[in-house]
Amino acid sequence: MRMVDLIAKKRDGKELTKEEIDFMIDGYTKEEIPDYQMSAMAMALYFQGMTTDERVHLTMAMVESGDQVDLSDIHGIKVDKHSTGGVGDTTTLILAPLVASVGVPVAKMSGRGLGHTGGTIDKLESIEGFQVELTGDQFNKLVNEQNVAVVGQSGNLTPADKKLYGLRDVTATVNSIPLIASSIMSKKIAAGADAIVLDVKTGSGAFMAELEDAKALAKAMVDIGNGAGRETIAVISDMNQPLGFAVGNALEVKEAIETLQGKGPEDLEELCLTLGSQMVYLAKKASSIDEAREKLKDAIHSGKAIEKLKTFVSSQGGDASVIDHPEHLPQATYVTEVKVNTPGIVHHISADEIGIAASMLGAGRLTKDSQIDLAVGVVLQKKLGDEVKAGDTLVTIHSNQQNVKEVEDKIVQAYQIANQAYKNQSLIYDIIK
Amino acid sequence: MRMVDLIAKKRDGKELTKEEIDFMIDGYTKEEIPDYQMSAMAMALYFQGMTTDERVHLTMAMVESGDQVDLSDIHGIKVDKHSTGGVGDTTTLILAPLVASVGVPVAKMSGRGLGHTGGTIDKLESIEGFQVELTGDQFNKLVNEQNVAVVGQSGNLTPADKKLYGLRDVTATVNSIPLIASSIMSKKIAAGADAIVLDVKTGSGAFMAELEDAKALAKAMVDIGNGAGRETIAVISDMNQPLGFAVGNALEVKEAIETLQGKGPEDLEELCLTLGSQMVYLAKKASSIDEAREKLKDAIHSGKAIEKLKTFVSSQGGDASVIDHPEHLPQATYVTEVKVNTPGIVHHISADEIGIAASMLGAGRLTKDSQIDLAVGVVLQKKLGDEVKAGDTLVTIHSNQQNVKEVEDKIVQAYQIANQAYKNQSLIYDIIK
Repeated sequence: MRMVDLIAKKRDGKELTKEEIDFMIDGYTKEEIPDYQMSAMAMALYFQGMTTDERVHLTMAMVESGDQVDLSDIHGIKVDKHSTGGVGDTTTLILAPLVASVGVPVAKMSGRGLGHTGGTIDKLESIEGFQVELTGDQFNKLVNEQNVAVVGQSGNLTPADKKLYGLRDVTATVNSIPLIASSIMSKKIAAGADAIVLDVKTGSGAFMAELEDAKALAKAMVDIGNGAGRETIAVISDMNQPLGFAVGNALEVKEAIETLQGKGPEDLEELCLTLGSQMVYLAKKASSIDEAREKLKDAIHSGKAIEKLKTFVSSQGGDASVIDHPEHLPQATYVTEVKVNTPGIVHHISADEIGIAASMLGAGRLTKDSQIDLAVGVVLQKKLGDEVKAGDTLVTIHSNQQNVKEVEDKIVQAYQIANQAYKNQSLIYDIIK
Repeated sequence: MRMVDLIAKKRDGKELTKEEIDFMIDGYTKEEIPDYQMSAMAMALYFQGMTTDERVHLTMAMVESGDQVDLSDIHGIKVDKHSTGGVGDTTTLILAPLVASVGVPVAKMSGRGLGHTGGTIDKLESIEGFQVELTGDQFNKLVNEQNVAVVGQSGNLTPADKKLYGLRDVTATVNSIPLIASSIMSKKIAAGADAIVLDVKTGSGAFMAELEDAKALAKAMVDIGNGAGRETIAVISDMNQPLGFAVGNALEVKEAIETLQGKGPEDLEELCLTLGSQMVYLAKKASSIDEAREKLKDAIHSGKAIEKLKTFVSSQGGDASVIDHPEHLPQATYVTEVKVNTPGIVHHISADEIGIAASMLGAGRLTKDSQIDLAVGVVLQKKLGDEVKAGDTLVTIHSNQQNVKEVEDKIVQAYQIANQAYKNQSLIYDIIK
């Protein structure tokens, strides 16, 4: 088999076999196939696309290119959740204890990630003492005892995907739905998931700005998951504004606590109930989505959910007192209010610009070695459709620097206020299975 | 400027500017742009194509990537000829002295090439003493004195094209008309041509099997040449069977001699008159194609053409006595006749298979370092449309090995003889300018 013939085959729009895809990914991982052939293949794939079979084969070849997490010692159906990424997305912090509190085993491997704020691991580390370095045995034992544990990424998972992603990034081949879908799904499957719930964001603050593109990506991932024997469901959710109010690490932890207490932002709670009920259903802890949703609402209102957060935090060495006393979380030195200039109705909030504002304060990581300031961030006081008067507070800035003029400007630019009625957008656009 | 942005631009079907193409080719030649970006670009170009302006910019960027032959010391308009390659293509050996004999300066740089037989340089070297290593001054002086000289390739011409061609070969991006056209034209322009006549072959033995593809390639090259200020004309000619009768080095020299004496194969003479009259016209040595053609026919019939071959050969140190005594050319030890089995009319001759038969005898070079046997080859005795009887000689094999069974089989396979009328194909399909 020769890689050049496989490139020609795909270039001409023909379907690659499992053997051909295995040959390609195995050879690429072992550096027997050079980058220059793989990048030509990636561009051919960009134009010609891939069939569902090809996508499944590619995903599994990438899964098999490295270590795979073995969760077989954990009882029950392990359901993982993945978000394509948005601003102020605190859902994992809420969902992990929430679905665990109704009996779903949550064995979450999480990264630090690059972005406007840190990843789930960073956010959890704003709780003093919280330990994310666990051995496989410790991790499995915790999940069996508590139904929930979160561990930092370790091992050599999907090296083919890492290598291919790096190459795509410099050859203008990132934006290919089959390649994006295979990349995400390979990581989830290698991390040991039996079933997967995907939160695919769409809107101005999402990677997939257009609803149609988000649907296509969701369908691609669901087909791969199901094709690979992992029951998969995708929720298409809105990212035309940040989710909830808080954008920042400790600030989002506080918001997660409030949501688990039933006092969180409406949109954040609704998205968590939607995603969570799919997870509970896939884990076979409810016989219908409605029953699952009721169980989760009950867990919030009965206090079971917030209790689960406490045991989860303390079982991983964290100071659970922050849950009753969120003021013990890292606090920023300065709090600055950004005021409304012109009255009207909020018509547009650029989620991306709000995210950049948070990262300007130090909430995010620009390179792998950057230090994150866990205390800083922004809290929206007004969201889409809100009526505002001059002098109202639009956003609160939490900073460790006194001068936040540039951040204020960024936030003012991110908002568009107009004197006309606003038609509310949906939070959930579609569920694809 | 970043290469990844240029790849994305082309991937999205936008036109690259001259500055962008210069940046890309200059960076690639200097190894500042890696192969993996160039191969992704080549695949994007494969799918999205290039405008005429882009093709001209790419061609000139490749011309400027290395040395350029300076023919300015040579008087008159230097017209070069290029063939896209066929089997038994002896036209250069005939055209060089033929058009020189009517006053067109022929300053030909030629390669050895890989193929079924050697290149023009190899064929000329079957004449004892013929010297193709000339300094620039010797070369220019010869052309000014004799109107014709042929020199082996030297200098670092179009290194960007060499590098890009090598990359395209292993990334399934050879078959792109803009890239093929730019590659050919950059070499011709770097070799110093003022005007160019292209012989674009089509048919079963040609790189472009389909007439439409050959026309598209011809048009692409003509547009580049004219866009780059080099008047260019393309002749589309038939390659559904070998040109002339002989396929082999010394055998083709003999055929060239016969053609210059007016005793050559009809198709070979006709193609040479067609290409030659375009060359004479572009060199402004005739005011019309018809006048040019008359001049060339007269040169053949008056003996001027064969005299020019003699002075050309002797001025480069070759033994001109072979022209009157072609039996002094290298001779093969064995001559084997392949006989007709079934009578009928010749309907198909696979030019490619005939070429392979010649190369099996040792007439061609498989790698850059292969030795060529100048004496061997095949001579067709029957061509398309010929009526054959059982026992007629189909092909004569000239070999230095006694057992030529495999070559015979190859030749028998290459011919299709049927009992039905044959409709003659055109030799010249089109002239594009």
